[in-house]
Amino acid sequence: MRTASIVASILDELGFQLEMGKQVMSADYCMGKPNKEDTEAHYQWALENGAKKEYLEPFKDGYTGIVATLDTKKEGQTIAFRVDMDALPINESEADSHFPQKEGFRSTVPNQMHACGHDAHTTIGLGLATLIAENKDSLKGKIKLIFQPAEEGTRGARSMAQAKVVDDVDYFIASHVGTGVPDGHFVASKNGFLATSKLDITFKGVASHAGGNPEEGKNALLAAASAALNIYAIPRHSEGATRINVGEMHAGSGRNIIADRAVLKVETRGENTKINEYVKAQAEAVIAGSAQMYGVDYEIQTVGEAVSAQGSTELAAVLHACAEESPHIKKSILEDDSPAGSEDATFFMERIQQNGGQATYCIFGTELAAGHHNEKFDINEGTMLAAVKVLFESIKKLH
Amino acid sequence: MRTASIVASILDELGFQLEMGKQVMSADYCMGKPNKEDTEAHYQWALENGAKKEYLEPFKDGYTGIVATLDTKKEGQTIAFRVDMDALPINESEADSHFPQKEGFRSTVPNQMHACGHDAHTTIGLGLATLIAENKDSLKGKIKLIFQPAEEGTRGARSMAQAKVVDDVDYFIASHVGTGVPDGHFVASKNGFLATSKLDITFKGVASHAGGNPEEGKNALLAAASAALNIYAIPRHSEGATRINVGEMHAGSGRNIIADRAVLKVETRGENTKINEYVKAQAEAVIAGSAQMYGVDYEIQTVGEAVSAQGSTELAAVLHACAEESPHIKKSILEDDSPAGSEDATFFMERIQQNGGQATYCIFGTELAAGHHNEKFDINEGTMLAAVKVLFESIKKLH
Amino acid sequence: MRTASIVASILDELGFQLEMGKQVMSADYCMGKPNKEDTEAHYQWALENGAKKEYLEPFKDGYTGIVATLDTKKEGQTIAFRVDMDALPINESEADSHFPQKEGFRSTVPNQMHACGHDAHTTIGLGLATLIAENKDSLKGKIKLIFQPAEEGTRGARSMAQAKVVDDVDYFIASHVGTGVPDGHFVASKNGFLATSKLDITFKGVASHAGGNPEEGKNALLAAASAALNIYAIPRHSEGATRINVGEMHAGSGRNIIADRAVLKVETRGENTKINEYVKAQAEAVIAGSAQMYGVDYEIQTVGEAVSAQGSTELAAVLHACAEESPHIKKSILEDDSPAGSEDATFFMERIQQNGGQATYCIFGTELAAGHHNEKFDINEGTMLAAVKVLFESIKKLH
Amino acid sequence: MRTASIVASILDELGFQLEMGKQVMSADYCMGKPNKEDTEAHYQWALENGAKKEYLEPFKDGYTGIVATLDTKKEGQTIAFRVDMDALPINESEADSHFPQKEGFRSTVPNQMHACGHDAHTTIGLGLATLIAENKDSLKGKIKLIFQPAEEGTRGARSMAQAKVVDDVDYFIASHVGTGVPDGHFVASKNGFLATSKLDITFKGVASHAGGNPEEGKNALLAAASAALNIYAIPRHSEGATRINVGEMHAGSGRNIIADRAVLKVETRGENTKINEYVKAQAEAVIAGSAQMYGVDYEIQTVGEAVSAQGSTELAAVLHACAEESPHIKKSILEDDSPAGSEDATFFMERIQQNGGQATYCIFGTELAAGHHNEKFDINEGTMLAAVKVLFESIKKLH
Repeated sequence: MRTASIVASILDELGFQLEMGKQVMSADYCMGKPNKEDTEAHYQWALENGAKKEYLEPFKDGYTGIVATLDTKKEGQTIAFRVDMDALPINESEADSHFPQKEGFRSTVPNQMHACGHDAHTTIGLGLATLIAENKDSLKGKIKLIFQPAEEGTRGARSMAQAKVVDDVDYFIASHVGTGVPDGHFVASKNGFLATSKLDITFKGVASHAGGNPEEGKNALLAAASAALNIYAIPRHSEGATRINVGEMHAGSGRNIIADRAVLKVETRGENTKINEYVKAQAEAVIAGSAQMYGVDYEIQTVGEAVSAQGSTELAAVLHACAEESPHIKKSILEDDSPAGSEDATFFMERIQQNGGQATYCIFGTELAAGHHNEKFDINEGTMLAAVKVLFESIKKLH
Repeated sequence: MRTASIVASILDELGFQLEMGKQVMSADYCMGKPNKEDTEAHYQWALENGAKKEYLEPFKDGYTGIVATLDTKKEGQTIAFRVDMDALPINESEADSHFPQKEGFRSTVPNQMHACGHDAHTTIGLGLATLIAENKDSLKGKIKLIFQPAEEGTRGARSMAQAKVVDDVDYFIASHVGTGVPDGHFVASKNGFLATSKLDITFKGVASHAGGNPEEGKNALLAAASAALNIYAIPRHSEGATRINVGEMHAGSGRNIIADRAVLKVETRGENTKINEYVKAQAEAVIAGSAQMYGVDYEIQTVGEAVSAQGSTELAAVLHACAEESPHIKKSILEDDSPAGSEDATFFMERIQQNGGQATYCIFGTELAAGHHNEKFDINEGTMLAAVKVLFESIKKLH
Repeated sequence: MRTASIVASILDELGFQLEMGKQVMSADYCMGKPNKEDTEAHYQWALENGAKKEYLEPFKDGYTGIVATLDTKKEGQTIAFRVDMDALPINESEADSHFPQKEGFRSTVPNQMHACGHDAHTTIGLGLATLIAENKDSLKGKIKLIFQPAEEGTRGARSMAQAKVVDDVDYFIASHVGTGVPDGHFVASKNGFLATSKLDITFKGVASHAGGNPEEGKNALLAAASAALNIYAIPRHSEGATRINVGEMHAGSGRNIIADRAVLKVETRGENTKINEYVKAQAEAVIAGSAQMYGVDYEIQTVGEAVSAQGSTELAAVLHACAEESPHIKKSILEDDSPAGSEDATFFMERIQQNGGQATYCIFGTELAAGHHNEKFDINEGTMLAAVKVLFESIKKLH
Repeated sequence: MRTASIVASILDELGFQLEMGKQVMSADYCMGKPNKEDTEAHYQWALENGAKKEYLEPFKDGYTGIVATLDTKKEGQTIAFRVDMDALPINESEADSHFPQKEGFRSTVPNQMHACGHDAHTTIGLGLATLIAENKDSLKGKIKLIFQPAEEGTRGARSMAQAKVVDDVDYFIASHVGTGVPDGHFVASKNGFLATSKLDITFKGVASHAGGNPEEGKNALLAAASAALNIYAIPRHSEGATRINVGEMHAGSGRNIIADRAVLKVETRGENTKINEYVKAQAEAVIAGSAQMYGVDYEIQTVGEAVSAQGSTELAAVLHACAEESPHIKKSILEDDSPAGSEDATFFMERIQQNGGQATYCIFGTELAAGHHNEKFDINEGTMLAAVKVLFESIKKLH
């Protein structure tokens, strides 16, 4: 909320029209959102940590998306940029060798760190906003900056796409720094994202004393263990790669009690949306069967999801051209189809392409001090300038 | 069929009234019966191996039970004796040290052996029939000899009990030789039989090429493996002992094919009928859940069943008295409640006791050359005489 | 520590000789002891909550056993009483209907409650100590009061037995209130305790990104799930009851990470020590095999253990006689062999009986407001007086 | 043996030099070979079914490979062709619509059918041999025809490669008909074969009576079930596709006996040899761990194996040119890298390429009446002529 309030205040000053919170996020499609209690506590924390109340208010319920629009009032296309803002539950390194520590801009919030570069993305987004505002008279059509929460865990984009924030968009550009692309290199269309579903499974059984009345228990731990094992055994798919993981299991409340509760954190992936749906359906059958085996109830909650996507080559070519003309980019690659992780910007891309628009996901390579999601993650800050410039040039070329 | 036809012919000659085949076996409660093809083949085999056609006919459909009644026409109680006649799928030893081999009465049928003493039981039953026939003028009431098939696997008794063959019985005595009781010893009331269910489980899935289209298969082998593992994990019961076994599993038709068929042979036991029902219900839930996990169909066939039972002390006391008076019995024990295997004579006992009658299961100890179900099983044949005498004396004492 | 310091101060005032802490507990045989940090924190808490420093000091390292001896200096036998003092991690009920709440003696420590009656045991022990001190001139031999920590989880007794605190004992009496025995009833020899082992299992694997490098992980969650399932599948034992439980499983650190750590809390039981050893050995094999399957390391820590025991009938008869003479006891039963939970006083009993002494475990029935380990557990306090009297009378009868 | 003897007699008549049996197959590397008894019975059967004894003799021990060499004695390269000869355990259709049935050339051996086209391959090989023999004066170098047994199950090629039969080869061409390639089309370099291992696993435990002494058994069925489940759970590999299958499981000998024996038929595959080795190693660890869990012994037998391979582009180009010039081929494709099944000709290819030679695997498309391994499999016989011609032309082009 604090980050969103700051972003909103800057965009407001720059003259963008702002839609915020539930205006740009469909509650029905929000996934993995913190509960009410945590949300209120976080609001208080933001207030106590310098957030301006007026800019904090729209995000009070935990819907922290922002869509900032600059309408040039001149005929032209609508171009949108996706910027993600969220951090990760990692303690940032306090080692002297860690540049943000040495320079004093290390995260001050325990167990919260921008270890994937989304702070750089936010900075690039605001830099781009500044250039747009400064040059608005020479621009045409509309420009929309979509500041998205909860990209980590692929939880936020679907909610914004379902709120129709990109339904008027002709060109859509999402971007990311790093991801293994060398410093100064650029990929105009990064494809190969795996479709994914993130599932929280809860089994609810009946506790009983394991020595005294074992036959009266309904064993949620065994249901979960059996589910975990059989979920891993879901068959491969002949049409493309799959992934499956049960990353966490927590069950039971005491050594001598038949466990009446168990939780699994599951993740499925597929080379395309159909394959992921197949794996998810199999996982659901395994879970239902495990529950039936042990006479326990279960609940499956989808707390994150992303589809696969393929960038629009025509739009990618425009970005490629901008990059090749840029003094900040050493080498530009039009398309990279190698397999990648997952990314929920794909929900925007799918929706725009279905509506006849064009969409791409581009990468600005940078030098990394340590890998993404590492406590010593840090980028070459020069990359931000390159990104702002290339993205701004693309607006001009697209008009 | 051949055995039954011989028994029937002897009983007929002795003047007993005979009810046979479906008259004394309820088809609805027959379990684990061979299929039509095997039954017909066996009928042919019996014909070719010396069975008299007239006595074979009643057993043609594979219902091989016999109830032989001698009605003295004098007022009095109805006393019944259960005699089991079936053999086991074991190749009898051809070792010179094996007495039946040396003396030339070893089984001549491959993979069929009286390795549990039921041939001795049949002999005892026919000996008893002879004494009864010879002394019929001095006897009262009715005497029923129940020659039961398929005690092994606990498959035959329920069908005869359901056909109401003991519904007019006041006293019921089942007996067995051996079972660890020393030579010359006698147990008037052997209790502690575990209730049991024998289940054949078939999973039917969908085959597919494991390399080419793994996602198109429905894996019956995995469903069965998962069921087997989780069946063993059924909780203990606080009220008494349980047993569970998956004795056989056969699945699949080729290394590179997702298995579309799997069979499990399962056995549950419980210290009493209620506990066995609990284990069986849990096993059924596990099987249903396993099938659901893998999207396969399943079928559960009950191919054997026995309940628990407790002998009637009053009746046991009569037998105990007969044994103590017998010159053939060195030591008689009234009751033995130690845990034992399973026995489906318990179906007769339960039904008779529910109708107000008395029932017991007695043991004639004998010297064994090797344990029951062993290829060198053999008894001290003198035990048969002791048994005939004690059982016959009990008739006289009960009138 | 606070409880032990109070008990020690009272016993000291009454004139008992005290041995405390490591003097009466063998560090090598302590199981499931809190770590150093928690121990130190608890010591501070005790200091801040009214414990007298001089009496707290002997327990500083977390060894909180006390052996209080009164030597009459007259020839005679050594009689020992076992008193357990520990509480449970349960929040005591704040309901108005809960008597301790209404009367103001509810636990004031969050998540700590005397929900099994060990506070009553401590009170009984101190009452008995008072009577002994008051009557010491009329007594003979030695009397030892063994105040034991950590009976819950069967963690404390073995350590005291190994410290030889009962090696000079001729008669040993452990007692418990409640456990389903009706108010005013007494059981002089409660047998049937199951031998038990409490095992903490840790699997250590290798984390890797489940989408990016699944083949680089060593999956501790799967090893633990497979172990849990197969531990439940350990066969029954023909010689007596067994129990097995995996009460808790906690694994993994993130949805998209191959879990590198998993913990199981396991409990085995057997009708006697040999049967429990069998189950434990099977569980260890399953754990080793599961670890091998997934290439992970594992550690098995025994955090609790108890053997089975059979009370000495002669000693029980003395208690039985005292109870029958007591005006506070309505009905006394000499022996109860029905199956029960587990209790580590059995370590004292076994050692004493091996040395030729006599030992028994007796029960003082009481009215319970709610079952043991329930947040509303409460007893009829009159039971404490009855217990003190009967136990004191037994001393006189034994001399 | 009968097939090999016929092939040998024809090649002998055509003037090829023959090496046969153990001369061309290393016994140490033979996999999944029938046992001695079956081998002798098959030899008798061949004798009784028209095989000439002189040509049968070299294959008597079941090593049925043939290498036929024509040495032109003129300087030049050595060119080898791989021809597989084996059938499948399938009952060929007797339907009137099945062309071989109608025309009278349906398999006359029950449960033996050329359902994959290897009879066509043998015919092509002999046709090629005839052309070579007829034109030997115009040819240079050496030509080797490698008639390989046991391609099904990938059992035969490794043994021949290890016998060094291709160590002097410069160019190696394996070919197959059908496999989905349209009639008249040709693929000069079919790649994408998955590396594979075929494993037979045997678990040996200890039987015991499941009711009487469950604790004395060592349960091979449970070890196998647990292995099956966990084998399917082997992680995916980030560098390429994997496949895993437990196609068959057979365990136990009776419902009431703890199973002392279990067999699994397992197949692993990987997009390349390294990935398959990874899956195989994981499977081996799972099997070892499962055995340890249940205290049973195990044995892993590798009964089939193939590596991955990539055709030599230069050699493929020669074949491609021949095909494009051929009046029998409508369309030729240089390379097809799409994923495919497994093929052990890859052992020859790997060895030749390691020695500096060139190798390729080509496909002659044909019209199929039904898919490979189907009981109605049949090809367009014209394809055989096309294949003979193209392969013969390649010899001329390669010199």
